[in-house]
Amino acid sequence: MFLQVINYASNTSAGAECIDPDCSWVEHWVHRAGPRKEIYYEPEEVKAAIVTCGGLCPGLNDVIRQIVFTLEIYGVKNIVGIQFGYRGFFEKGLKEMPAMELHFGFNLQLSRDVVENINLAGGSFLGVSRGGAKTSEIVDSIQARRIDMLFVIGGNGSHAGANAIHEECRKRKLKVSVVAVPKTIDNDILFMDKTFGFDTAVEEAQRAINSAYIEARSAYHGVGLVKLMGRSTGFIAMHASLSSGQIDVCLIPEVSFTLDGEHGVLSHLEHLLETKGFCVVCVAEGAGQDLLQKSNATDASGNVILSDFGVHMQQKIKKHFKDIGVLADVKYIDPTYMVRACRANASDAILCTVLGQNAVHGAFAGFSGITSGICNTHYAFLPITEVITTPKHVNPNSRMWHRCLTSTGQPDFH
Amino acid sequence: MFLQVINYASNTSAGAECIDPDCSWVEHWVHRAGPRKEIYYEPEEVKAAIVTCGGLCPGLNDVIRQIVFTLEIYGVKNIVGIQFGYRGFFEKGLKEMPAMELHFGFNLQLSRDVVENINLAGGSFLGVSRGGAKTSEIVDSIQARRIDMLFVIGGNGSHAGANAIHEECRKRKLKVSVVAVPKTIDNDILFMDKTFGFDTAVEEAQRAINSAYIEARSAYHGVGLVKLMGRSTGFIAMHASLSSGQIDVCLIPEVSFTLDGEHGVLSHLEHLLETKGFCVVCVAEGAGQDLLQKSNATDASGNVILSDFGVHMQQKIKKHFKDIGVLADVKYIDPTYMVRACRANASDAILCTVLGQNAVHGAFAGFSGITSGICNTHYAFLPITEVITTPKHVNPNSRMWHRCLTSTGQPDFH
Amino acid sequence: MFLQVINYASNTSAGAECIDPDCSWVEHWVHRAGPRKEIYYEPEEVKAAIVTCGGLCPGLNDVIRQIVFTLEIYGVKNIVGIQFGYRGFFEKGLKEMPAMELHFGFNLQLSRDVVENINLAGGSFLGVSRGGAKTSEIVDSIQARRIDMLFVIGGNGSHAGANAIHEECRKRKLKVSVVAVPKTIDNDILFMDKTFGFDTAVEEAQRAINSAYIEARSAYHGVGLVKLMGRSTGFIAMHASLSSGQIDVCLIPEVSFTLDGEHGVLSHLEHLLETKGFCVVCVAEGAGQDLLQKSNATDASGNVILSDFGVHMQQKIKKHFKDIGVLADVKYIDPTYMVRACRANASDAILCTVLGQNAVHGAFAGFSGITSGICNTHYAFLPITEVITTPKHVNPNSRMWHRCLTSTGQPDFH
Amino acid sequence: MFLQVINYASNTSAGAECIDPDCSWVEHWVHRAGPRKEIYYEPEEVKAAIVTCGGLCPGLNDVIRQIVFTLEIYGVKNIVGIQFGYRGFFEKGLKEMPAMELHFGFNLQLSRDVVENINLAGGSFLGVSRGGAKTSEIVDSIQARRIDMLFVIGGNGSHAGANAIHEECRKRKLKVSVVAVPKTIDNDILFMDKTFGFDTAVEEAQRAINSAYIEARSAYHGVGLVKLMGRSTGFIAMHASLSSGQIDVCLIPEVSFTLDGEHGVLSHLEHLLETKGFCVVCVAEGAGQDLLQKSNATDASGNVILSDFGVHMQQKIKKHFKDIGVLADVKYIDPTYMVRACRANASDAILCTVLGQNAVHGAFAGFSGITSGICNTHYAFLPITEVITTPKHVNPNSRMWHRCLTSTGQPDFH
Repeated sequence: MFLQVINYASNTSAGAECIDPDCSWVEHWVHRAGPRKEIYYEPEEVKAAIVTCGGLCPGLNDVIRQIVFTLEIYGVKNIVGIQFGYRGFFEKGLKEMPAMELHFGFNLQLSRDVVENINLAGGSFLGVSRGGAKTSEIVDSIQARRIDMLFVIGGNGSHAGANAIHEECRKRKLKVSVVAVPKTIDNDILFMDKTFGFDTAVEEAQRAINSAYIEARSAYHGVGLVKLMGRSTGFIAMHASLSSGQIDVCLIPEVSFTLDGEHGVLSHLEHLLETKGFCVVCVAEGAGQDLLQKSNATDASGNVILSDFGVHMQQKIKKHFKDIGVLADVKYIDPTYMVRACRANASDAILCTVLGQNAVHGAFAGFSGITSGICNTHYAFLPITEVITTPKHVNPNSRMWHRCLTSTGQPDFH
Repeated sequence: MFLQVINYASNTSAGAECIDPDCSWVEHWVHRAGPRKEIYYEPEEVKAAIVTCGGLCPGLNDVIRQIVFTLEIYGVKNIVGIQFGYRGFFEKGLKEMPAMELHFGFNLQLSRDVVENINLAGGSFLGVSRGGAKTSEIVDSIQARRIDMLFVIGGNGSHAGANAIHEECRKRKLKVSVVAVPKTIDNDILFMDKTFGFDTAVEEAQRAINSAYIEARSAYHGVGLVKLMGRSTGFIAMHASLSSGQIDVCLIPEVSFTLDGEHGVLSHLEHLLETKGFCVVCVAEGAGQDLLQKSNATDASGNVILSDFGVHMQQKIKKHFKDIGVLADVKYIDPTYMVRACRANASDAILCTVLGQNAVHGAFAGFSGITSGICNTHYAFLPITEVITTPKHVNPNSRMWHRCLTSTGQPDFH
Repeated sequence: MFLQVINYASNTSAGAECIDPDCSWVEHWVHRAGPRKEIYYEPEEVKAAIVTCGGLCPGLNDVIRQIVFTLEIYGVKNIVGIQFGYRGFFEKGLKEMPAMELHFGFNLQLSRDVVENINLAGGSFLGVSRGGAKTSEIVDSIQARRIDMLFVIGGNGSHAGANAIHEECRKRKLKVSVVAVPKTIDNDILFMDKTFGFDTAVEEAQRAINSAYIEARSAYHGVGLVKLMGRSTGFIAMHASLSSGQIDVCLIPEVSFTLDGEHGVLSHLEHLLETKGFCVVCVAEGAGQDLLQKSNATDASGNVILSDFGVHMQQKIKKHFKDIGVLADVKYIDPTYMVRACRANASDAILCTVLGQNAVHGAFAGFSGITSGICNTHYAFLPITEVITTPKHVNPNSRMWHRCLTSTGQPDFH
Repeated sequence: MFLQVINYASNTSAGAECIDPDCSWVEHWVHRAGPRKEIYYEPEEVKAAIVTCGGLCPGLNDVIRQIVFTLEIYGVKNIVGIQFGYRGFFEKGLKEMPAMELHFGFNLQLSRDVVENINLAGGSFLGVSRGGAKTSEIVDSIQARRIDMLFVIGGNGSHAGANAIHEECRKRKLKVSVVAVPKTIDNDILFMDKTFGFDTAVEEAQRAINSAYIEARSAYHGVGLVKLMGRSTGFIAMHASLSSGQIDVCLIPEVSFTLDGEHGVLSHLEHLLETKGFCVVCVAEGAGQDLLQKSNATDASGNVILSDFGVHMQQKIKKHFKDIGVLADVKYIDPTYMVRACRANASDAILCTVLGQNAVHGAFAGFSGITSGICNTHYAFLPITEVITTPKHVNPNSRMWHRCLTSTGQPDFH
């Protein structure tokens, strides 16, 4: 699967390419990541820029830090940070100003001294923002500032943006390497074993789950409900449920379920309250979207549209137990921001270190339009176009999901 | 202030009393807590019961554990736990059943072995519940089970309940000691320097505040908003703001403010976004109740009543910045359950230890209708009737509030 | 490598075997772990025993808990815990006594209720001890107690012991499944991607490293020195150094080095103090054993033999800087017990869950003499004999070690 | 006790004084801390310096940060940090260099931007060092650099140094305010309710104690031994033992004990191993100094002098149980550096905030030779001379020590 031949010469729109036409990229579209014998740039003349896009994710600062360290090891002197995502390229007042302190407190000229300890705090030292993919303006800015390498740390949308920048640079014959590092706390990037921040998120989610468990167990007919991240995928919910060992029901986007009826979730919760006295439920934010649409469709009273399955679930549970006249003490926890804003744990710190180092190796090798990941246990460069086609999903037939079901003891909700 | 004479003989309804009429309680209504030379009960014949009422608070298990330990040191053999608050006294299926495992997993016969490590987890080992103050039924149950000492760990309402039980026992001439330990994470008990769980809550709130700070600082025009506990008092919000050093605006129930207008909170947030680029706001749940009532009164569209100032504030901020056409990226964090469900920190663990030991000393001294607290740096017994008259409040003229204002740099919002 | 054919029939002493002669074990010596369609035992009649051996490791309680859960799912009613390692089989006073509380506070009859929350604390609920491999007495005890399945959670030595028990059972024609789960915080088991506890250890080691960093950086010419676990392997030291990003020198058993001389470690530390003002060193306990032997050999004063490279290194650094007249403020941290006694983190909790489930699946499939591991990303059963032949080592030519060198910036010390 | 009259005019050597002769200091030697209506300096012309001395203590950065914040609120523009304690005043290469980065990475010119987040890490941002009290050279440097206010954060020795500087300034007729903030993790400053860092230390010590407990309980005849800070006082050991609830024996400098003999500690440990199966011991580093001297005196084999009671105790326990032929598995934990290097917890963060603010208020009021503390629940200024006469001790007759004894259940060891 990883050996599909792409022909750089004949298929320039097929994604990643090597600025150097002799590069072996033309033969394989996945390359083992790491340093190359020959480098494409003269380090002392390189101007490199780093930008972080989208929402927060544990490890952003680790990746920034490692890119700076590795650039310096190559000998690069001119490294700048772009503030607040792509917005920093074109928005007035956010332009890169070397050796100056913005009123936001950021010194945009980056060096080892500046980034030495940024990994000790969560968030993004450079600031993030969503959207703003005005490709043409961004490339104007890249050209004006004579940037040679652009490192984009971001999710699916930002990868698409990075690829558009890469292509626009090609079109304009600019020798700019655009190298991405996938940032998605949801772990939903195709071909990637794991994305940074995921492990930390699962770890930090334990805190919320344990609180829900304590609240539920300490209450008479307590129901703990925890909503975790995962718009289209249930990796965080599944792993967090499995590692906690305290979850009775785990609901994810990939596995459909009914709430009502004899075999629905609510009926199972009744059973748990009767037999066990309490229960704890974990839902991915993107679970049960079909149910949300239905409920909106049938809702004639003009209520606000529910955009959040966690809140919906909370209301459904409360209503159900009220309707059947059984006491249920529901406690809802949404730890999203507290999970996102964490610093990376040790395992993610290593992943970020390697991904950051490899991103720089890739740029110096002359690659552009690539992203740095771990793929089938090997660190690799992949063409951006390939990884953004579709998100990775939990396979409902996988052993991991079955282990999760064994751990929760939940039945099939149909 | 602490030396008001109460005459036990002539005023039997005035609160705490000593079952032994020779007790010095008749002269002072605050007694130094601690062991007494003479004890009123024969330990080997005592049956003691423990009940936890209301919401969760860090340290509940520490107090339960220490009451059991101290009772055993006195020589008490028969200690039972009442499940799920007062409800456990009268509800079918929750009755105390020595030496049996309920299906809730609790072994209600308590001993050192059973409670040895319960302090390592948050919550209440015995379960809690709200309400259920059917005094007469409870005392029937006490009488039927031949309980000699009842330890009630609960808040204001549960203290009132405990006092009613105490008075009903007096009326029925039952020699039952009813001794309370105040449980309020809000730290709002009159005469008490500090209640258990408060210190832990302030500590744990740092996590939420820091997340809000990281989210706000990493976003373009980020606004972090954290709601902390405090229905009628702002102690947690004030202390958490002061200790974090990351809060720009702290709003508490004791200090009124306006949101709109030139000197309102929203105008100040505008100023912060302009000058600093981001801001972090901390509100007590009971802050701005006058504003909530007003907004409800003027709301003609039939929207759901806002019972929660945090959510209200979030909506107001979003609406305000939308109205004035300024981008504001609002992140709202409500860490309530994650704070409540924590285990006690070291400082609270010591407080719980001493309060629990003293509760037992008080019962053995023959006191009833009292509560065990720390008052002007001294551990003391106080009559329940005195501490429940009114909650303790943050004094807006106190140095501590002024220090908080200095730390946040916030102006007067009027 | 994983497909070597072993012939069960002709080579019964070659390690793992299947009690059921039709089992496919005869063809491959590595089997995909997981449940089997046919089970070899009648669950209701099975008596299963669990024993934990050796030193502490994060996750022991998670594995015990999961074995109990999975046995109960199969329908096993009779599960006993063996106390304090193999010692519990033969030592007076430690024998298994179902439905009884020992004075150690352990109820040896295990069930979901008993083990439900044991994973929330570190250590081993059953107790551990070293040594005691009196195979014959152990099998006598197994026979006397009619144990059908024995789960051994332990390191290399305990695996050897488990294999000896397995062989003795074969010799005596006992239908006993002996299934092991490898416990080594050092991550040094051959063929295994990762052993449980390792990830937690690396995480927890960050605390010690950060303390050393803070101490070193805050001192004038501060030298922070941290000793981490790893008798024969440097996995913990390497991963902890890499993830912390705060280590200047990492020394492991697999890579030899000199302390003295122009290119020695001490000379490099001098350089760091001069240029950077402070430095932080991380050593695996088994590093530099050749240096220790030498120093012992030349030590004529009869001093106690140094068994610990951390302490040796501390003394060498102090002496060196004293000798050259340069101030060096050395702070030595040995966090071993604090790391070992931790509870498992989320990632290890999942690993323990799967390993524990698989151990039970293996036993029910009729295997014996096997161990449950993760091997090339797949969960597998391996014959004990194969994994204990030699420990796994850090490959000094691996990318991971090179990444560690890049991160520390340390030269070759020769 | 706090109202002793001191006559500034007639007794200039009696310690703290007010540079402004009209100050009320002449009447009382303890002053309520806080801002004054009239200030003695013109803020815009003030040059203030901050120095941290001695060992690390949680909260150092909080105090530095708050002094800077408060100075800026007064309007001070010129704030410098002195590096590595008093040594920074006279040592070549460490001199204060405004607006320059030293190779140590410190920007000595301090402002809100520089110190904004230093409280998020432990240690001292300015660096610490011991000794170096060359009063005359220091005052030369103060004079040469035109420093008007010197803030000294340090322990007993550094307070004595600060007082000597204060007196030398007086002698030279320099209008310099020398204001100290007591830094002692041991909480042993006379008249002070609590010193910063102590609460954090007790909290962090729980980690070590819990590890010792887990190790001891999981081992056959396990003995956990934890050494905590406290050269001359047992406050940390006492509070940590009490809050953990896991300690069987707590030994502190203020209470003598015997190790050997029928009523000695070792005999009690035997009893615990027999009855309970394991035990956990907590010792203050300064405990049993009389025993150390004795053992040295009688030691004829020329062994190295034991300077550390923890190590001594470990050896004694091992030897004792070996001598009597009873197995004892001793695990010794010394968490000193990991406790010291922590960041301040919430409670200490508030204390540091107030102490730092008050130190600045004191300097602006024209006081010198004072220290900023909390005394009988009130924040106060005290003359340095008074607080350094003798350390504060645990009172062996106090309720707190008795509560500790109740909690451990230990007998009198004589």
